[in-house]
Amino acid sequence: MVDTVALLEEVREKKPLVHHITNWVTIYDCANVVRMIGALPVMTHAIEESSEMQGIANALVLNIGTLTPHLVESMVKAAKKANELRHPVVLDAVGVGATEFRTRKAIEILDSVQVDVLKGNKSEIAKLAGANVFTRGVEAVEIEENVAELAAKIAKERKNVVVVTGEHDVVASPDKSYLVKNGHALLGRFVGTGCLAASVLGCFAAVEINYANASAAALSCFGIAAELAALKAKGPAAFKQQLFDELYNLDTAAVKKMQKIEGFK
Amino acid sequence: MVDTVALLEEVREKKPLVHHITNWVTIYDCANVVRMIGALPVMTHAIEESSEMQGIANALVLNIGTLTPHLVESMVKAAKKANELRHPVVLDAVGVGATEFRTRKAIEILDSVQVDVLKGNKSEIAKLAGANVFTRGVEAVEIEENVAELAAKIAKERKNVVVVTGEHDVVASPDKSYLVKNGHALLGRFVGTGCLAASVLGCFAAVEINYANASAAALSCFGIAAELAALKAKGPAAFKQQLFDELYNLDTAAVKKMQKIEGFK
Amino acid sequence: MVDTVALLEEVREKKPLVHHITNWVTIYDCANVVRMIGALPVMTHAIEESSEMQGIANALVLNIGTLTPHLVESMVKAAKKANELRHPVVLDAVGVGATEFRTRKAIEILDSVQVDVLKGNKSEIAKLAGANVFTRGVEAVEIEENVAELAAKIAKERKNVVVVTGEHDVVASPDKSYLVKNGHALLGRFVGTGCLAASVLGCFAAVEINYANASAAALSCFGIAAELAALKAKGPAAFKQQLFDELYNLDTAAVKKMQKIEGFK
Repeated sequence: MVDTVALLEEVREKKPLVHHITNWVTIYDCANVVRMIGALPVMTHAIEESSEMQGIANALVLNIGTLTPHLVESMVKAAKKANELRHPVVLDAVGVGATEFRTRKAIEILDSVQVDVLKGNKSEIAKLAGANVFTRGVEAVEIEENVAELAAKIAKERKNVVVVTGEHDVVASPDKSYLVKNGHALLGRFVGTGCLAASVLGCFAAVEINYANASAAALSCFGIAAELAALKAKGPAAFKQQLFDELYNLDTAAVKKMQKIEGFK
Repeated sequence: MVDTVALLEEVREKKPLVHHITNWVTIYDCANVVRMIGALPVMTHAIEESSEMQGIANALVLNIGTLTPHLVESMVKAAKKANELRHPVVLDAVGVGATEFRTRKAIEILDSVQVDVLKGNKSEIAKLAGANVFTRGVEAVEIEENVAELAAKIAKERKNVVVVTGEHDVVASPDKSYLVKNGHALLGRFVGTGCLAASVLGCFAAVEINYANASAAALSCFGIAAELAALKAKGPAAFKQQLFDELYNLDTAAVKKMQKIEGFK
Repeated sequence: MVDTVALLEEVREKKPLVHHITNWVTIYDCANVVRMIGALPVMTHAIEESSEMQGIANALVLNIGTLTPHLVESMVKAAKKANELRHPVVLDAVGVGATEFRTRKAIEILDSVQVDVLKGNKSEIAKLAGANVFTRGVEAVEIEENVAELAAKIAKERKNVVVVTGEHDVVASPDKSYLVKNGHALLGRFVGTGCLAASVLGCFAAVEINYANASAAALSCFGIAAELAALKAKGPAAFKQQLFDELYNLDTAAVKKMQKIEGFK
């Protein structure tokens, strides 16, 4: 049983510092969503300080949306420090399966450091599980494989948590697995939802070492805020703004009532 | 005659993947506007994957707002692949005429690859046509020359489409030319309108090989959304948010009724 | 006595071009806030054009939020040109005190060129004054020292203006010093407020060579817009959008009535 409310309260109270090395597209929104949920972001990528900055942080979120070899090098450096200090490392495998370069670099990160939470959409995760799939830029394509099984396979091999975002989010781990059924279709209508979810994941993982539970709680809160925002917004842009404010104002009673986290396996 | 409605419907149905190598200022908005109009963006710039990513895309949008020599190299690489695959290449010549470096780099791109749609503001295009003008950072300055004539001159020389944004947008091509009279003054009150227009252009050019028609249709849709947004917003920031939602909700009946595209020459 | 209204009107009339070399997180908002207050932004960082672009600009705003050694090199180059042309140079010392790298680089800039307005939060400025403090990523931590005294110490040593943002903003200079008491708690609830303030500072410093007065006027206008925005917004995201529109629509009568600038020392 995931105590989402307790974890949300812990994020707000401890205000963990969540270090990101991320992409240039959603970097502002990633930083801001961390503030909205009650934690603190720091976004720095220089290889000269990535390890030092991680040293004063509580979690690391990596996102390869606009990767370069140099940026990946800095990511690995920061992640090694995070591993050393037992800070959680979240990797958002953006666009894996779109280019061979991107797939190779994601695997390079996974093989160089312990990624505690690996997150992607259906085709990104399927690709990392070895399926013969293709990602359309950064968009998931429909796949034949059972993505929950593929996620579980990776989780078992890499001894970590694998999150697959979609209509329902899958959280697979060697122990427990969850389906998170919160969310709203409007989340799929603007750019960067997946990145935002990964940043919120980082905040929860910073306060809860059971990363499967942290992930389920984070995704549930994010999805609940989306459900609340959708009640007030008529288009994706208004919805996105409202989503940030709903996260900021997220009421623990509403979370308790609205959360839809199911164990499975 | 430009069938704007048919082209908009085609963008929404085919959801072309529009690869951008763009600037760090408006990169999020460029990606998001592509989603709003119904297509899919992918923003990647690493020279190691720019050609490969273009290989799976349907169009390329280049924007030199925050150019470096390295970024331009990656742009040229992606554009060569686009040329090879006959994907449209759009170049937004941001800030040409502000520095000698910027002007030189834009010409370098134009001379290295086939740019199918060259877009700029008055002084950027005038500069590229050889006029002795100056751009104030990224802002157009008033010029004495007839910008439609200068655009036509470039279009003839380079056998492409030249778009000049302004109160009325000029679309010049060796064959037909258009004036697009949609739009609203509020578009000029926030940062990045020109970049957004170029991204929308990329979406339409991905589905219509008559790039003059594609450009006129794109600019008309963008302008109509602006006109609709202006009815609801009191300041540039609210207007910008509304603009995104109007693009998302853009009704084909409204487009048919409101479009103002005039042929000329 | 600071004539805030006259300076605001001068910004709007002269529309100074404010060149930024800044971070990838808030770069869009920095550009846009410059437009909102009535000036023009240009954001370019390539070392090949940073000096040339500064040559046609009216002010330089440097922000080390996502610094790299290469970016700092470009900053110094642009700042040397600004010094030569007597354009104001504003430095936002983001994250100084968080890593040794960051602190060293900020001092390198300060020692290489004349920074006319140095801006930071409490712990950033305290660190630069030699206090044994720590910055939590980019967030100020409470310090024991009197920050106004530390700011005055730096201002005296470096013969410049030192601005410390916080609940009340301190503007210290070798001559006059001010406390600016405009603002609203919601400014502290989203990412980038400090960056925005520095950009507005750059606009005012571009039209008023008394940089202490320019800084006080800029911070007062920014704070007043925040106070007005807070009347209409229920969450940080809505507030931020409204802040931009309030800056755009900022009424000089309201400024005159609401400004709270106190001399002190």
